[in-house]
Amino acid sequence: MFENYFSERIKNTPSSFIREILKVTQKPEIISFAGGLPNPISFPQEELKISMNRIAEMYGAKIYQYSTTLGLDTLRQYIVDRYKKLWNMDISIENIIITTGSQQALDLIGKVFINEGDNVMVEKPSYLGLLQSFCVYQANFVTTKLNDDGLDIEDLKNTLKTYKPKLAYLIPNFQNPTGLTYTAENRKAVFDLIKDEDMLLIQDDPYGELRFEDTPRIPYIGLNQTEKNLYLGSFSKIVTPGMRLGYIIANKEIIRMIETAKQAADLHSNIFGQYLISDYLYNNDLDKHIEKIKKLYKSQAQAMVGAMEEYFPKNVKFTRPKGGMFTWVTLEEGKDVMKLFDKAIAKNVAFVPGHPFYVNPKNVNTLRLNYTNANSETIREGIKRLSEALTEV
Amino acid sequence: MFENYFSERIKNTPSSFIREILKVTQKPEIISFAGGLPNPISFPQEELKISMNRIAEMYGAKIYQYSTTLGLDTLRQYIVDRYKKLWNMDISIENIIITTGSQQALDLIGKVFINEGDNVMVEKPSYLGLLQSFCVYQANFVTTKLNDDGLDIEDLKNTLKTYKPKLAYLIPNFQNPTGLTYTAENRKAVFDLIKDEDMLLIQDDPYGELRFEDTPRIPYIGLNQTEKNLYLGSFSKIVTPGMRLGYIIANKEIIRMIETAKQAADLHSNIFGQYLISDYLYNNDLDKHIEKIKKLYKSQAQAMVGAMEEYFPKNVKFTRPKGGMFTWVTLEEGKDVMKLFDKAIAKNVAFVPGHPFYVNPKNVNTLRLNYTNANSETIREGIKRLSEALTEV
Repeated sequence: MFENYFSERIKNTPSSFIREILKVTQKPEIISFAGGLPNPISFPQEELKISMNRIAEMYGAKIYQYSTTLGLDTLRQYIVDRYKKLWNMDISIENIIITTGSQQALDLIGKVFINEGDNVMVEKPSYLGLLQSFCVYQANFVTTKLNDDGLDIEDLKNTLKTYKPKLAYLIPNFQNPTGLTYTAENRKAVFDLIKDEDMLLIQDDPYGELRFEDTPRIPYIGLNQTEKNLYLGSFSKIVTPGMRLGYIIANKEIIRMIETAKQAADLHSNIFGQYLISDYLYNNDLDKHIEKIKKLYKSQAQAMVGAMEEYFPKNVKFTRPKGGMFTWVTLEEGKDVMKLFDKAIAKNVAFVPGHPFYVNPKNVNTLRLNYTNANSETIREGIKRLSEALTEV
Repeated sequence: MFENYFSERIKNTPSSFIREILKVTQKPEIISFAGGLPNPISFPQEELKISMNRIAEMYGAKIYQYSTTLGLDTLRQYIVDRYKKLWNMDISIENIIITTGSQQALDLIGKVFINEGDNVMVEKPSYLGLLQSFCVYQANFVTTKLNDDGLDIEDLKNTLKTYKPKLAYLIPNFQNPTGLTYTAENRKAVFDLIKDEDMLLIQDDPYGELRFEDTPRIPYIGLNQTEKNLYLGSFSKIVTPGMRLGYIIANKEIIRMIETAKQAADLHSNIFGQYLISDYLYNNDLDKHIEKIKKLYKSQAQAMVGAMEEYFPKNVKFTRPKGGMFTWVTLEEGKDVMKLFDKAIAKNVAFVPGHPFYVNPKNVNTLRLNYTNANSETIREGIKRLSEALTEV
C-alpha cells in the first residue's frame, strides 16, 4: 500500500534474499555455516566488565552524554598509534572518523561520493553489505575478477579502460566471501595500474588481523603513496561486533566531508561503547588477545578444509583460507547452487548461496561457508552432511 | 582537492555554520545556551551501573555479539507497552524499529521515502538536524508557519494546495527550536486538513515526556486514525543520549522497508546499549525518573524566563515553554541576530542564531536558547549579559 511513497533508491535495494536464507537457517536443528559471526568465546568478557566499571568511575556522566561526531579522541589516537606502528602511516587523529560499525563507513562513503550512475569497481564476487549499501546510492557496479592471488590484472586493465570508475572497493586480506588474499606482487601490479587513474581506492580490512600463519603482513595497495586511499577498519572481529565500532582513515578533507554526512546520519556513534573499547585497548594487550582468536579460528578452518578434502567429491573446488572467517566453494560448471541449498537444508546444514555476492547473479554455482562460529566437531558433521547433499545434485 | 569526487547531495548539505558556532561557544569562559544537551545530573548513573553488571551476568556473550536489524525484542516490547498504556495504540513489536538515535530515524526515513525534488513540509522554523538529514536526499522543503498554538491553518491550506507534499515533518510537543506546543484544537484542525491528503505524517517527539505542568498530555495529530502516521521517539532526553537509542513506530510494511535501509546503514544499533536500557527500564520506574528531570528543567526554564522578563528590553519577544529544552527569542523587525551574536560572544554568552532552523534564512532576527544544561544562577548571569548585548544592537 505504500509502494507509491517509497524512493527509487530503496525499491532497487536487495534485501529479501538474505533475510529468507537466514530465516531458514535459524532453526535449532540446523548446523549453519551461513552466518558471519565471530565465535562468542573470543569476546574478552571479563576484561570488558572491568573496563565498564572503571569508565563508570572515571568519567561519570560523560559516558552517557552527547559527544562529538568524529568520535572519542583517545580511541582515534589508539588507531593512529597502531597504524603508525604496523604500517608507519603518517596520520593524526584528524585523519580518522569513528563509525557505527564498518557498515556505516560504507554507507557514509556511498553518501559522500556516489551520484546516481557513477561507476564503482568491485571484486567479483564482492561483500554483499557493500553491494547493498552502494546500491542505495544507485551506483553502477563494474566488476573485476578475483583470482587465487588477487585481482585479475588483464580484467582490471579492461575495467579501468572501459569504465573509468570513480571508486574502487577492495578487500585485500581474507576477502569476504572468498577467503582469498592478494599477494604482494598482485598488490604492486594493481597499484601500478591504478595510481594515475582519477579514482579513489577503498580498502576494507575487517579480517587482516586474523592471519593464521606467522608470515609477515602484506602492506596495503599503494600504502602511504597516495592521498586517494581510504582505509576501513573495525573492532568487530577482534574485540566485539555488538558495540558497532569501525573507522575510516583518509585525507583530512575527505574526513571532514564524511563528518558532515555522519552528523546527519546519527550525530555520533554510541559514546559509552567508545569509552569502553578505548579503556579495554589501553589496559590490555590486544595482540595477545588476537593470538587467541587466531589460534581458535585456525583450528576451525583446518577442521573445515580437512573435512572438505575428506568428504567432498573431487569436482568440487574450495579456497583454503590463511586467515579470516570464510571459505568459498565452487561446484561443477552448470550446477545450480539453489538446488544444493534445498538438499542441504533437508539434511539440516546451511550456507549462503553465492547470489548476493554478485552484481548480476546468474547460473550461480558458488557458495560461502563460515567456520568461526562452530566447534571442529560440529564443523566435521556439517561438512559431512553437505557432502551427502552434494552427491544428490 | 576532492571537489570533483564529492556527490551533489553532500555538496548541498549545510554543516559549517553550526560547527563554527560551536567552536566559539566551547571556550571555558563562555556561558553557553547554544547546545541542546540534557543536564548530566539527570542521568541515572547508579541504576545504569547496576544494570550493566546485571546484563553482563545474565546474558554473557549476547551483549557483545551481532544482533538483529530491527532491535532487541524486549526493548521494542517495552515501547509497545508504554504507547499502549499512554495512547491506547494498537501496535505490536512488528511496528517498531530501534534506531541509532532519532537522528538515524530521520536519515532512514529520508532514504526510504525521498526522491530528489520531492516536496517535504516542515514547520517554519524547523529542527536543524532534520533539515540537514533530508537535504542529503535532496528534498524540496516547503514550510508552514508555526504560531503560538501550533501550525498556521491558513498557511497550511495554501502549502497543501500549492505543493501537495509527500511527507510532513512536525514536532507537536515543545518544538525544537521554539519550545512551542500545538494545542488540542490546533491538532484537530491540522488533522482535518491533512487526513485525505496523499501524504505521510512524521511526528517527532523527543521532548513530549518533559511536560512541566500537571495538565493532561495532548494526543498526537490523528492518533490511531491513519496508517500514514509515523511516530518518532527517543531515550536521549529521558534516560541517556550517549547510548544513541531512538525508535520509529509505523505501519509494518513501512518498518520492513526501513529495516532494509538500516541493514545497509549500520546492520543494527549497539546491542549492549539496547540490553542496558532495556534492563534499566524493566527494573526502574521511568515515570518517577522523568518527574525528577521535569522538576529540574522546570526550575531552569523559570529562571530563564524570569531573567528575560526582568532584563530584556520590552521590544524583544520570547516563548514561555511549558516543557522541553528551549526558548525562542525574536528581536525587533530589521535587527540582525549575527550582530547580536558577536556582541554576546564579546560578553562571554552564546546562543544559536536562527539561521540553521530556516530553509532559506534571510534577515534573521531570531535565536534559540537552551536552559537544560546550566544551573539557575548561571542562567540568570547569562541572560543578564545577553540583555546588555541586546542594548548594543
